[in-house]
Amino acid sequence: MIDFLPSPAVARTLLTGLVAGEPDDEAARRLFALHAWSCLVEPGDGVAGRVVAALGPEAALAAVSSESPPHTVLETTDLTAAQWQRARDRWRPRLVAREVRNALEIARHSELAMLVPGDRHWPAALTDLGQHAPFLLWVRGDPGALVHLTPSVALVGARAASGYGEHVAAELSADLAGRGVTVVSGAAYGIDGAAHRAALAAGGRTVALLAGGADQPYPRGHSELIRQIAQSGAVLSEVPCGSPPTKWRFLQRNRLIAALAGATVVVEAGWRSGSLNTAAHAAALGRPLGAVPGPVTSASSAGCHRVLREFDGRCVTNAAEIIELLGDLEPTLFDLPSPSGGGGRTDDRTRITDAMSFRTWRETTEIARRSGLAPAEVTAILGLLSLEGAVVNGNGGWRRTRPVAQTG
Amino acid sequence: MIDFLPSPAVARTLLTGLVAGEPDDEAARRLFALHAWSCLVEPGDGVAGRVVAALGPEAALAAVSSESPPHTVLETTDLTAAQWQRARDRWRPRLVAREVRNALEIARHSELAMLVPGDRHWPAALTDLGQHAPFLLWVRGDPGALVHLTPSVALVGARAASGYGEHVAAELSADLAGRGVTVVSGAAYGIDGAAHRAALAAGGRTVALLAGGADQPYPRGHSELIRQIAQSGAVLSEVPCGSPPTKWRFLQRNRLIAALAGATVVVEAGWRSGSLNTAAHAAALGRPLGAVPGPVTSASSAGCHRVLREFDGRCVTNAAEIIELLGDLEPTLFDLPSPSGGGGRTDDRTRITDAMSFRTWRETTEIARRSGLAPAEVTAILGLLSLEGAVVNGNGGWRRTRPVAQTG
Repeated sequence: MIDFLPSPAVARTLLTGLVAGEPDDEAARRLFALHAWSCLVEPGDGVAGRVVAALGPEAALAAVSSESPPHTVLETTDLTAAQWQRARDRWRPRLVAREVRNALEIARHSELAMLVPGDRHWPAALTDLGQHAPFLLWVRGDPGALVHLTPSVALVGARAASGYGEHVAAELSADLAGRGVTVVSGAAYGIDGAAHRAALAAGGRTVALLAGGADQPYPRGHSELIRQIAQSGAVLSEVPCGSPPTKWRFLQRNRLIAALAGATVVVEAGWRSGSLNTAAHAAALGRPLGAVPGPVTSASSAGCHRVLREFDGRCVTNAAEIIELLGDLEPTLFDLPSPSGGGGRTDDRTRITDAMSFRTWRETTEIARRSGLAPAEVTAILGLLSLEGAVVNGNGGWRRTRPVAQTG
Repeated sequence: MIDFLPSPAVARTLLTGLVAGEPDDEAARRLFALHAWSCLVEPGDGVAGRVVAALGPEAALAAVSSESPPHTVLETTDLTAAQWQRARDRWRPRLVAREVRNALEIARHSELAMLVPGDRHWPAALTDLGQHAPFLLWVRGDPGALVHLTPSVALVGARAASGYGEHVAAELSADLAGRGVTVVSGAAYGIDGAAHRAALAAGGRTVALLAGGADQPYPRGHSELIRQIAQSGAVLSEVPCGSPPTKWRFLQRNRLIAALAGATVVVEAGWRSGSLNTAAHAAALGRPLGAVPGPVTSASSAGCHRVLREFDGRCVTNAAEIIELLGDLEPTLFDLPSPSGGGGRTDDRTRITDAMSFRTWRETTEIARRSGLAPAEVTAILGLLSLEGAVVNGNGGWRRTRPVAQTG
């Protein structure tokens, strides 16, 4: 154990160049311990998450390497002795100091930065993962890019994308990136690649999450794309340098994409596409979820239609509708009480604003139908409301305005 | 007024050949009065609906033709004197006995049948329209076809359909009709025509609703198609023979399509397609509503995506999913209590059935994830449940079975 958690001085040396500033003794040991935990476990290990949250990473690490009965562990977590034993049995084989230190060496050579919870650039959204949150993130590129994850949208989809899918992914991504929305994806072939490339071409921000170590571009054919993403944004991974991507790590990488982005949109996906796993994570996290429909005759869109049917995803057809999706995070805004005022006129105003949407443009005739007022009355009152800034005209119709600044 | 509502003997003569059997005095006058009302009003006139419901068609007709103040009308309805006056002013110009009688002559020459509420073949679903229900229906073809409206689906969409839209309409219609579902539509060019034709070609049942008189095929180019629909099913209209289709009558015809069919599906529709009006009626009536998605790059599918986004329609991609939509009418079936039994095994069975759907096929791994049980346990218990007929296997997954016979 002494061998495993080094002295503060040694820890500081091992971390040189990987973290911002000069960590003090306590910080250096904590950083090293978090890194060690990321080496011991597979991503998303909830038992490890609970133990580290309860004891702190250093004491939790000591508990794993200790042979004595884990009283502190069972006292401070609600794990049973058997659960602890099973977890410890799966972590112990990776308790190899040389490999843990080696991963740091690779990170330094690859010029990666290590981010841990509490760091200035640590994405707050990851807190929503609870005990499944990553212990740290490795960043290739600029950790500062992560402050731009609000607003952000994950555009994900199948590797085996059709021309339609890649076209739509590129259009949406360029439009979102052009409006200041960071495009998050997984750097895979197909939809992911089209989304990253279009965001870069539009001069926008894009962030890639890798399933393997951030030191190794994957897929290899996207080495140059991943380099470009790192140059203008960030390439992230929670697994130690040198880790190959595995099926499990892809699935867990998907949970990070879903958690980091403000909303997830499946652009094109077959019935069993891995991007449906990202969609499921987004739904489980309560993140807004959308899917781009396609021809029902195309197997490449069947997964998107599953998201609409089975995951209660929202049908989105353009960037504006995706930005509306981000607005779903502020449900209270859509539910404001109508302002009160005097006289019968107010009733008509209320009926008209009640008949309108904050999101959807409606024609005057439609507002008349919904409010039960004559079109001429509606037109007159819309004019008044428009002068007050309570409604706006556009897209051949009217909608209500929100009382706060809008994303995008 | 005497001139307008004829003696029973005259009424019987005028109705000869138009109704089943020989109506007695009372029935003959009621039938004539209902027909007269259908001539006085535009379809869906809610004031007329209330007055006729309150006074009966004969007395209501007398009130319209009478010059004296309408005490009985205001006493038995909640209309104001001004409302009554406005309504009467719009009905009186059509109080022309010759035209009312003439419409019956045309109906007889066209070999139509007249159906009124209470008739054996009157579709009970129309009751849901309340005061906007039609006074009668003219049937070209077999009134008996209307008993087959359960189950039925309205397949509607744009006249200016794409090859994709017509292809999908035909596929869905043939599949639904082949499974015994009556396909309801509006006999228009494009999606409507493709749906009717495919249902006929599949040897299934199809019903067309016209916006003008049932005596005049519209559009003219579909005269032969409408003849074929009448030959094997029914062509319906609520407006008197000789009435041309108007914009208003198209919109009101759409309410009949939505009300008559068990569910409405928009197959392909542009942003402002009239079929969205049918969708809005279906939504207002609480009928299940679906839309077939298409490429977001195609303006021809923009209306379908509106149905998904703005009308909360369900995304449907094949006939089986449309039949599921009909199942939404029986929500209690999806909510059955789990059968009880002895021992811990029952808990696992319950967890597994809780993790399953009556509608959606789920893979074993998904059921394991949802139930929190090991895949091997899930497989074993699914086997037992399958022997009991509580679950079925198919489509690469499992789903629960319903305790009643299934549509299709």
